[in-house]
Amino acid sequence: MADDYPFKETVRDRSSRARTGVLTTRHGELETPLFLPVGTKASVKAVGGDELGSTGSISLIANAFLLSMKPGVEIIENAGGLHEFMSWEGGIFTDSGGFQMIREGFLEKVTDEGIRFRSPYDGQRVMMTPELCRDIQLGLGSDVAMALDVCPPHDAGEDEVKEAVRLTINWARRFQPGPSTDGQLRFGIVQGGLDRGHRKECLDKILEVPFDGLAIGGLSIGEPKDVMFRVLDDLVPHMPDTHSRYLMGVGSPEDIIRSVERGVDIFDSVFPTRNARHRTLFTPNGKVNVRPSTFRNDPGAVQEDCPCMLCRKYSKSYLSHLFDVQEPLAWRLASLHNITFIQQVIKNMKMAIKEDRFSIWKEEFLRSYLSGGG
Amino acid sequence: MADDYPFKETVRDRSSRARTGVLTTRHGELETPLFLPVGTKASVKAVGGDELGSTGSISLIANAFLLSMKPGVEIIENAGGLHEFMSWEGGIFTDSGGFQMIREGFLEKVTDEGIRFRSPYDGQRVMMTPELCRDIQLGLGSDVAMALDVCPPHDAGEDEVKEAVRLTINWARRFQPGPSTDGQLRFGIVQGGLDRGHRKECLDKILEVPFDGLAIGGLSIGEPKDVMFRVLDDLVPHMPDTHSRYLMGVGSPEDIIRSVERGVDIFDSVFPTRNARHRTLFTPNGKVNVRPSTFRNDPGAVQEDCPCMLCRKYSKSYLSHLFDVQEPLAWRLASLHNITFIQQVIKNMKMAIKEDRFSIWKEEFLRSYLSGGG
Repeated sequence: MADDYPFKETVRDRSSRARTGVLTTRHGELETPLFLPVGTKASVKAVGGDELGSTGSISLIANAFLLSMKPGVEIIENAGGLHEFMSWEGGIFTDSGGFQMIREGFLEKVTDEGIRFRSPYDGQRVMMTPELCRDIQLGLGSDVAMALDVCPPHDAGEDEVKEAVRLTINWARRFQPGPSTDGQLRFGIVQGGLDRGHRKECLDKILEVPFDGLAIGGLSIGEPKDVMFRVLDDLVPHMPDTHSRYLMGVGSPEDIIRSVERGVDIFDSVFPTRNARHRTLFTPNGKVNVRPSTFRNDPGAVQEDCPCMLCRKYSKSYLSHLFDVQEPLAWRLASLHNITFIQQVIKNMKMAIKEDRFSIWKEEFLRSYLSGGG
Repeated sequence: MADDYPFKETVRDRSSRARTGVLTTRHGELETPLFLPVGTKASVKAVGGDELGSTGSISLIANAFLLSMKPGVEIIENAGGLHEFMSWEGGIFTDSGGFQMIREGFLEKVTDEGIRFRSPYDGQRVMMTPELCRDIQLGLGSDVAMALDVCPPHDAGEDEVKEAVRLTINWARRFQPGPSTDGQLRFGIVQGGLDRGHRKECLDKILEVPFDGLAIGGLSIGEPKDVMFRVLDDLVPHMPDTHSRYLMGVGSPEDIIRSVERGVDIFDSVFPTRNARHRTLFTPNGKVNVRPSTFRNDPGAVQEDCPCMLCRKYSKSYLSHLFDVQEPLAWRLASLHNITFIQQVIKNMKMAIKEDRFSIWKEEFLRSYLSGGG
């Protein structure tokens, strides 16, 4: 059975749990560590599927819940699936969207059956069950579908965490009653709050379900960073090497690197694109803010050696101007840069792991990046 | 002297005043008829200089007045000029911006000296003289600079039109006291409202100034279309063949074609990009509105034979979705399409003129386009 897993570890770092691997999907082999830009509504904000590949991205993640509301699964099925619909030939993960349903004010009630919520678009009542969640993602035709889970807030009490774990496990069994046979991979999600015991219990039960990979939910939602890393330190060693490990909602370059060090393979986050739209750009010397005082009269590139469209063709001065006069081109160029930056970090990190110098690379990168000298 | 003009007529239609020609600028030979997308603030809205060439555009127009306020001429000079600043290697026209100063509520007073206005950005008082207007455009480094003129409203009275003509002529002489010698071309602007006599008088006086080309201002600002064409019918035959003729602010495919028929060579307009952002797309069968009722479930291209990014890679269905969920990618794709459409019209029209079938081509295009069947 283990030989059937779609994930293969390729190189393991000797001084940490960092590793490289390959996740085989119906849209190609996705090398890990892997960062997924977020295209919630079937568009990575301000960036087209036609140019996402230029950032070094090989897969993205969309939100099944929101897409099922608008434009609706049928429309996307008629288009030939999400890849055709958004003109993207790389990998596509779909998140169940349980997190959005619970957090963004649409929720009416969570029951054993599922999540009852009101559509943010037309106010209609919908019951999202694990079965419906699976069917939606099957209809969308993503390469990797995420289970429906319950994600309690980071400061939830003991009872709330236990109930979330209970529902997450029950729903996982209903979401994936047998092994995937249709080419779509399905990942289970481990909840359990910040408690080692609940996490371990949830992991053990999720491992009994024939998922193709594992995700870690309920982190990076407001808890202190050291607490998040402590949870990873406790949890990841119990996760089998045969499963790729996806830490949902992370994140920043430094959090990604420190999570890879702890054995995580896959990441997604709006961090690069949201920062970009708010004038914050990543550079090897740290984040920089596109301030008129520093950018306005600088004809140099944001980052000299960066292969992105912004840095190859445009100056700091021009980008500053575009933000100042609120031209939408600013969002596109800044987003292309930040996604490219993260993908360059991923690429360099993979090379460092393969060349047995991950720790040195990590120290060097973080020393420069966190110096904030940029 | 006539041999020195930067414009050469190449082919003249036998049944109308339509013609092809070449305007030689320091950024290449611009074939006419020529359509300039508008990049008011040094960005064609939602479209980067890196992809404007893909629409078939070979030149654009920016607004010297607004750019002189923000980011300021010095910043653009430091960048190496407007071409470098916005990463655009094609031609660049700059409009004086007199129209914006007068129309958009910044105006304080028009005197013999120039236009006194308040900066829309910081409220500072500025006196825009013809000399300053020339110096700004020289600093921006555009290929073609437009004179400072006074453009009265289409329903202005006799006195207002006469005063506008008087100032436009005086300012033209101050703007261009001798022939251009620095590689930048300078165009004079003919005002005169809707009156044949005032137009002719203004043209005669403007022709005494050693401009490199001629523009027609004060049209397409609210007057009926047949009145605009009547003015062109009266005015253009008096314009020498040695000067390229630029009709400012036009426009729609049908207005461009009908103006080419009357001898106009050059056009600029926000029409394609503004329509695009408001969900209106051009097709050979007329304008179509991206309505959910017709687009939502249509996996076909907006226009099957269109070479633009939207039509090559994306469906009607996806575009409709992007507009519905307000993704900024919608503006970019729709703008790329509409600019490409206009440039295809220009390209086909040039070919028709060269092959002595302009009238037939025009009839066929307009029959289909104005049928509104799209």
